[in-house]
Amino acid sequence: MKPVKVGLCGLGTVGGGTFNVLMRNAQEIARRAGRAIEVAQIAARAINPQCQTGNTPITEDVFEVVNNPEIDIIVELIGGYTLARELVLKAIENGKHVVTANKALIAVHGNEIFTKAEEKGVIVAFEASVAGGIPIIKAIREGLAGNQINWVAGIINGTGNFILTEMREKGRAFADVLKEAQELGYAEADPTFDVEGIDAAHKLTILASIAFGIPLQFDKAYTEGITKLTSEDVLYADALGYRIKHLGVAKRTEQGIELRVHPTLIPAEELLANVNGVMNAVMVNGDAVGSTLYYGAGAGMDATASAVVADLVDVVRVMTSDPENRVPHLAFQPSALSNMPVLAIADCETAYYLRIQAKDSPGVLAQVATILSERGINIESIMQKELEEMDGKVPMILLTHKVTEAKMNDAITALEALEGVEGQVVRIRVEQLN
Amino acid sequence: MKPVKVGLCGLGTVGGGTFNVLMRNAQEIARRAGRAIEVAQIAARAINPQCQTGNTPITEDVFEVVNNPEIDIIVELIGGYTLARELVLKAIENGKHVVTANKALIAVHGNEIFTKAEEKGVIVAFEASVAGGIPIIKAIREGLAGNQINWVAGIINGTGNFILTEMREKGRAFADVLKEAQELGYAEADPTFDVEGIDAAHKLTILASIAFGIPLQFDKAYTEGITKLTSEDVLYADALGYRIKHLGVAKRTEQGIELRVHPTLIPAEELLANVNGVMNAVMVNGDAVGSTLYYGAGAGMDATASAVVADLVDVVRVMTSDPENRVPHLAFQPSALSNMPVLAIADCETAYYLRIQAKDSPGVLAQVATILSERGINIESIMQKELEEMDGKVPMILLTHKVTEAKMNDAITALEALEGVEGQVVRIRVEQLN
Repeated sequence: MKPVKVGLCGLGTVGGGTFNVLMRNAQEIARRAGRAIEVAQIAARAINPQCQTGNTPITEDVFEVVNNPEIDIIVELIGGYTLARELVLKAIENGKHVVTANKALIAVHGNEIFTKAEEKGVIVAFEASVAGGIPIIKAIREGLAGNQINWVAGIINGTGNFILTEMREKGRAFADVLKEAQELGYAEADPTFDVEGIDAAHKLTILASIAFGIPLQFDKAYTEGITKLTSEDVLYADALGYRIKHLGVAKRTEQGIELRVHPTLIPAEELLANVNGVMNAVMVNGDAVGSTLYYGAGAGMDATASAVVADLVDVVRVMTSDPENRVPHLAFQPSALSNMPVLAIADCETAYYLRIQAKDSPGVLAQVATILSERGINIESIMQKELEEMDGKVPMILLTHKVTEAKMNDAITALEALEGVEGQVVRIRVEQLN
Repeated sequence: MKPVKVGLCGLGTVGGGTFNVLMRNAQEIARRAGRAIEVAQIAARAINPQCQTGNTPITEDVFEVVNNPEIDIIVELIGGYTLARELVLKAIENGKHVVTANKALIAVHGNEIFTKAEEKGVIVAFEASVAGGIPIIKAIREGLAGNQINWVAGIINGTGNFILTEMREKGRAFADVLKEAQELGYAEADPTFDVEGIDAAHKLTILASIAFGIPLQFDKAYTEGITKLTSEDVLYADALGYRIKHLGVAKRTEQGIELRVHPTLIPAEELLANVNGVMNAVMVNGDAVGSTLYYGAGAGMDATASAVVADLVDVVRVMTSDPENRVPHLAFQPSALSNMPVLAIADCETAYYLRIQAKDSPGVLAQVATILSERGINIESIMQKELEEMDGKVPMILLTHKVTEAKMNDAITALEALEGVEGQVVRIRVEQLN
């Protein structure tokens, strides 16, 4: 059988990795796919010194590749929303299949892209858009297809996890570790997407859609970053038997879907709590399978390329098949997507870690307990005496039972108004992962 | 579209779970598959009180189901080699697709079964045969299709892992925990398959085939059980910063494939070392993706059913497709399987934990060191003084660097011949998982 011809748009980190993996493992890949996969043309603004592109034609114009009639599959690895969207829509219009690693594109423009792809009978594959080389899209969309998925919780931003790991293991401050991460190349010069949770929210939006069969709704995701986390809270969490992770959580409730990214305490004995450094991991809980976990490198040249190439093999295996019988883009048939609402953060329910800076007066605890109890908020545990005094004030740490965010906001307002409480109450959500 | 009709052979634990998941999640499953999946007939020797089979016809004769012309897919959940093999071959002959959870059947008769299936253009799906609900077959066969897989290492027998976890956490003896596992229903009345590693070797055989593209070769797997493990070695391993797990390891080397199941020391900080109780986990290392890990329930009614139903959805999605373009049974095209040899255990290379019962004479250590050094075996660390004396003798614990099993066997023979050494040398293999 003649080789499948691929047009590679982008030759940066992931594009270069994809080119190299396709070359290095060409034989292994053809043995699996039943056909060779050949890079027929590359669009790149610059040469990548890590790639031996040899005789492969290179152009600066992505549309030259997208309009090349010889090419069967377009691999979009240029990133961003605007040009990438145009490029992908044009490729679909030209009847080409598309493989992309672009989480922002899928989270924001995925509904439009998939509708067009289904009209034209082509595939848009996006395994590499979430958690790098971990085949998490395939696991949820196909491997757990017998389940009603209850929730997904993941460490899906390596930069953020590297920072939190360093803060915990070495007691370092956020800003200090961020600077090192930038020097190591783990964080961008503008780290906003990573540390403010936007990148994680893009990925979580995609995971929620394929888990629950709902359209992509990035604009409804609640996103809170790790920039305000202090090393003291990281250490207090430790003392309570928890770790703080920047978690993406998507949960099915009777009211609707919770879709939220925020710093989260999770029990230290959970595998997810022990995923450190730049590694990613996603837990998926289904009604039949129970809890499962998928772990690996969430970024990097070759790890992300691993997912891009797996998508290419998938596309090659089904490109000649009847579109009606393919795996649907969002796991569920387009006509069977559900309109379950995505809940506002005020309606989401979690347990909470609260740190209250109390003046050392015995009455404060009673007042705090009263405020919580009046709002039906149960206290799981209190830690006070073991903690060192800081600047003559005693931090009071509470773990609560589950309560809606709206009730907790109300309680925090009341707590901050107490005479015996100084400054703002620190609040971090808690997930038990069960 | 009209429903796909399934014939369910077996209504025991997994069969009953499969029936229940298909009923409970019928709507969710049809939304994914694009068609309803209907159990048209059941073969069972007895009613399962946990299943409301209602009007579904039940027969005692599996061949009545296999020969039922209305049925599209046969689900084989009766277990064993003999009747299951006949049933599956007959189903294939009748042009029906097959889904099975039977690891023994696939490991022992898989080559024959897949050859017949390819001749008839039908699919035999077997996700449930390894690690219960964890979609590990799909992850390796499709999700990592861009990689040259370097090695696979897994905790793939829940009974054995439960026993080792209890031995470590509570300092209990093997026989004692086994008895409890039998009472809890985690272990069979005859526990041989679980504790002697045969069940794990069946599963490892399957994983090795799809990872490396080699035919199934269960007869070449090296299998060592956990029955001789003592709680003292479990505790010494702990003191050295390791955990002992009953691991299945399949590794690509230049000489061939290592395929072995045995108790193994692994670094305590590895996620795999922290997989406890009846849970399963598999690590897969690929040249592009690096190390990835897949974790979940390896057995149980609903967890295994999760994998059976995922396979059903997969089959429904591709049953009308061109057989040439399907995912090959063993990941690689049948014509592209490799004849890389499976190595004898003597040619496999690992590091070792050795426990030597030395008489308390200062010369013994020097003699031990000489024997190892003469055979080119490097010592990584020695632990002696910290250990309590046992019956007036001092156990000497050594960790070695990597060496072939043949060399180590030779060294152990020489060590046991030393006058200063009492009884047999305890030897447990070590994997660093990197």
